[in-house]
Amino acid sequence: MKQAIVARADLGMGEGKLAAQVAHASLQAYEDADRQAQREWKGSGQKKIVLQANSESQLFELADRADKKRIPHAIVRDAGHTQLDPGTVTALAVGPAADDRVDAVTGDLSLY
Amino acid sequence: MKQAIVARADLGMGEGKLAAQVAHASLQAYEDADRQAQREWKGSGQKKIVLQANSESQLFELADRADKKRIPHAIVRDAGHTQLDPGTVTALAVGPAADDRVDAVTGDLSLY
Repeated sequence: MKQAIVARADLGMGEGKLAAQVAHASLQAYEDADRQAQREWKGSGQKKIVLQANSESQLFELADRADKKRIPHAIVRDAGHTQLDPGTVTALAVGPAADDRVDAVTGDLSLY
Repeated sequence: MKQAIVARADLGMGEGKLAAQVAHASLQAYEDADRQAQREWKGSGQKKIVLQANSESQLFELADRADKKRIPHAIVRDAGHTQLDPGTVTALAVGPAADDRVDAVTGDLSLY
């Protein structure tokens, strides 16, 4: 079980900003998962990996793929109080789900 | 309502690593909160801020302060598969709780 969080590297977010966006996405996708997946993932150490994308459209394509495979996922838009314009899409979390199911969506991406 | 996540700046964590640790801490403290605090925080946009600390002892002091004030919180130790030694304390999340209660614990820290 794992969760992959894909964040946009093209926005020039600071480290703390990036971390907050990743945490938003992680929590939202977690809540999109069913109770059994939540339990299994937590029981196995809630593995998270942070990956990079370079555009909004790439995040939407990945979200679409996760949606078709019925993997819990969540897209995050920034409220725009700091650094970014309101509504900017910053991150996507995929899972928790079985490793191979997550890899089928995000396996081609580089570590952030 | 907000949640403050305090991460160690002295470990030299890469951006993705930092983001994953912040996300771990965020989710664990969220689960330590009662259902009403969880709902209120999510309903108000789940505000998160990422702050910096510079030692393990500082994180434990802050956790102790949160504990005494009965604010939900969670300390994260890294499993040590990459970059860090196993068991390294990397981050602390405080809240979700009312802004002033969180500030009473983490208000003196700088943004990460």
